[in-house]
Amino acid sequence: MSRNPAQRVPRRLHLNVNILHSGFVPSAWRRDDADPRAFIDVSHYVRVAQTAEAGKLDAVFLADNAAIVDQIDFRPITALEPTVLLASIAAATTHIGVIGTASTSYNEPYNIARRFATLDHVSNGRAGWNVVTTADLPSARNFGRGTVPDHAQRYERAAEFTEIVKALWDSWEDDAFVGDKAGGRFVDVDKVHPIAHRGRHFEVHGALNLPRPPQGHPVLVQAGASADGRELAARHAEAVFSASQSFEESAAYRRDLNERAAVYGRPGVKVLAGLTTIIGATETDALRRRDELVDQIPWRYSLNRLAGTLGIDVDRLKLDERLPDDLALPGSGNGNHTFFQATIAHARRHGQTVRELIRSLAGGTGHRVIVGTPEQIADDITHWFNGGAADGFNLMPDVLPGGLSDFVDGVVPILQKRGIFRTAYEGATLREHLGLARPDNAQLWRESA
Amino acid sequence: MSRNPAQRVPRRLHLNVNILHSGFVPSAWRRDDADPRAFIDVSHYVRVAQTAEAGKLDAVFLADNAAIVDQIDFRPITALEPTVLLASIAAATTHIGVIGTASTSYNEPYNIARRFATLDHVSNGRAGWNVVTTADLPSARNFGRGTVPDHAQRYERAAEFTEIVKALWDSWEDDAFVGDKAGGRFVDVDKVHPIAHRGRHFEVHGALNLPRPPQGHPVLVQAGASADGRELAARHAEAVFSASQSFEESAAYRRDLNERAAVYGRPGVKVLAGLTTIIGATETDALRRRDELVDQIPWRYSLNRLAGTLGIDVDRLKLDERLPDDLALPGSGNGNHTFFQATIAHARRHGQTVRELIRSLAGGTGHRVIVGTPEQIADDITHWFNGGAADGFNLMPDVLPGGLSDFVDGVVPILQKRGIFRTAYEGATLREHLGLARPDNAQLWRESA
Repeated sequence: MSRNPAQRVPRRLHLNVNILHSGFVPSAWRRDDADPRAFIDVSHYVRVAQTAEAGKLDAVFLADNAAIVDQIDFRPITALEPTVLLASIAAATTHIGVIGTASTSYNEPYNIARRFATLDHVSNGRAGWNVVTTADLPSARNFGRGTVPDHAQRYERAAEFTEIVKALWDSWEDDAFVGDKAGGRFVDVDKVHPIAHRGRHFEVHGALNLPRPPQGHPVLVQAGASADGRELAARHAEAVFSASQSFEESAAYRRDLNERAAVYGRPGVKVLAGLTTIIGATETDALRRRDELVDQIPWRYSLNRLAGTLGIDVDRLKLDERLPDDLALPGSGNGNHTFFQATIAHARRHGQTVRELIRSLAGGTGHRVIVGTPEQIADDITHWFNGGAADGFNLMPDVLPGGLSDFVDGVVPILQKRGIFRTAYEGATLREHLGLARPDNAQLWRESA
Repeated sequence: MSRNPAQRVPRRLHLNVNILHSGFVPSAWRRDDADPRAFIDVSHYVRVAQTAEAGKLDAVFLADNAAIVDQIDFRPITALEPTVLLASIAAATTHIGVIGTASTSYNEPYNIARRFATLDHVSNGRAGWNVVTTADLPSARNFGRGTVPDHAQRYERAAEFTEIVKALWDSWEDDAFVGDKAGGRFVDVDKVHPIAHRGRHFEVHGALNLPRPPQGHPVLVQAGASADGRELAARHAEAVFSASQSFEESAAYRRDLNERAAVYGRPGVKVLAGLTTIIGATETDALRRRDELVDQIPWRYSLNRLAGTLGIDVDRLKLDERLPDDLALPGSGNGNHTFFQATIAHARRHGQTVRELIRSLAGGTGHRVIVGTPEQIADDITHWFNGGAADGFNLMPDVLPGGLSDFVDGVVPILQKRGIFRTAYEGATLREHLGLARPDNAQLWRESA
């Protein structure tokens, strides 16, 4: 069969899974088949990642916090440090990407550049870094700060931090390593370049102390939805985790982001829309599953969490009344604006009481939830993807590994049959899975020479 | 057979191996069977660790730097970040300990507490942290500093840093995690204690965001030989990597350290003496192997390195003359005092020319080198161990994995036959291998209640 070179490469759907300990729903750990210790059990995470790899997903993702930022009396938290856990996962898998969160507010760029470069080396090119600025007060207080740095300052630091990390990854030309035994020449030092960065937040003089990562740069991921967040994503991110509640909102976000990226001469940013899935053989089964899960979450937990998202006192929430009318965006460092807006929009659109709102969010904080059969979920994904509302999804299964197995066994085959999702890995690196070019650094050093 | 409870538990020899990329000798990467890329190849490190585990060694160890601090034109450097690489190694092994270096000068205690706690969780209790203060200028310049902080200040920060990390590891009582599905109680929050630390260098408010590591504390290792270094070790270290050139010096160091530890009411600190091994079927073979290896190191490299250790201009070294007479300890941040003193003592004791000195150090900077048959090496180890000069050794094989395989196949069986080294792992954790008690934290929280 001859290939038509003019034929456009079809867009490909990307599926990432957030492997949040026992699952997205706060009561997931209470199910009969769940091990409550899963959140600190490496074999649990390995099993989840192997399930995702069996489904040919692009990547697994680990969020992170630098403090206890949820109610641990009621539920598991993000606990194990992502880069270390992802190295364990990479050792037990062969293709799937491994994306981890690290904060630009409470780390040093040289250390982060090394850790993610190392993860890229040990995984043979499967690493990604989710850049976050960390907005909560408990984290700030674990790093000598009495208050959260303000939003603009956090993003200014994040932009400089990310630039340094990329410069460090580029500090070795791709062919700097020689390894000539006979000549006794290990590295061509003329191809290793100190970055000599002096900026507002950081001074970093040297080159990285390891060769360029297999992918050139580990894939850069970001999740900011504010204007500052979108600018950071437009300048640096190759994929974003978004939290849109509706098709139109997500499509508008994706257009805006791609327009902003174009200003910087950058190709499109892959929008991976957050999606919690609750799957049943019938829609009734799925709804029953959701209700069982939500009923296992103590109301006290859900009310506290919702009050936290809204930045109000919990006493203002009544289970069988609607949300108060006078809600205002919480101040910096006090909640997440994206989830605040998503939650309010959701409640008002559906005219829900607090109880109904909590139920329909499946105990979450504002990510979109679909409850249904594999066919219904595949239809929704297909609609969003074909309609340009997303390039893919950041899946948050209700329960892990069960909810992911149901997705892999039920939804993936439908997407494959429709020709929008791969049936086998075509590449070996996360960049290849995501259809991202490997960044070139030779040009950079030719220019500076 | 009945056991006599009064019978003293015999002292046990401990063997740790420094898995320094291609091996200790700077030319190791040039050997016919070596892969020059080994220094960034996870499968190389896994093979080395599996060899060490086959030999029932206590642990593998990865040193670290936060800059390029050696001549990469001539040789591999410490490149991959230890905690990430050790997680990969832990995934491919079952018993051997995994010890990694991290600097207290260029990290935050909350981050280090989490990373090593995570490594301890993913390895099921096999993690150790080698606490270093990082004395070189290139590293300082990668973290916004124009000069290296002075020695006393580095150690003051290291002591406070280590105290915080231990407090964070202790911030969850051992039974804080409940996981009661029926009652819906995940963690007993009354057993999770914010540390509320306010010190000279750090303020850290919260508890760690993960349960206590399986070992209570990952094993604390240290390598300081200065007065400040010995004090830090006496207060916190459970094992030390030492660099004594002679039996008497090592025995005196071990006595001093144990006396200092006793002042703090602490049990003895395990002294693991640095030992480079070059093994041959006969002594002549071993010497030939050493000379072949040293001849493959460019003299320019060795002279530069020796000049660096001595803190002098390289032009002052003449290959066929003795060291200059007027050498003085280099200033803080300019070389390593232990290696300075060891090198000079070695050269003067043997009346060596510079060329002879470089040859007898096997291209190294001052660690003791034994060149000989397995029997000779086993005799030396037995002598040091039985005579109280060391509790064990930090092995630095000339070439990896070959030099380690020779040790495991040749030396280990002799030590086992003599009854001083284990023939099987008796425990599951690094603490158990090293005969160290699991630290209790219940007392701590009862006192503060």
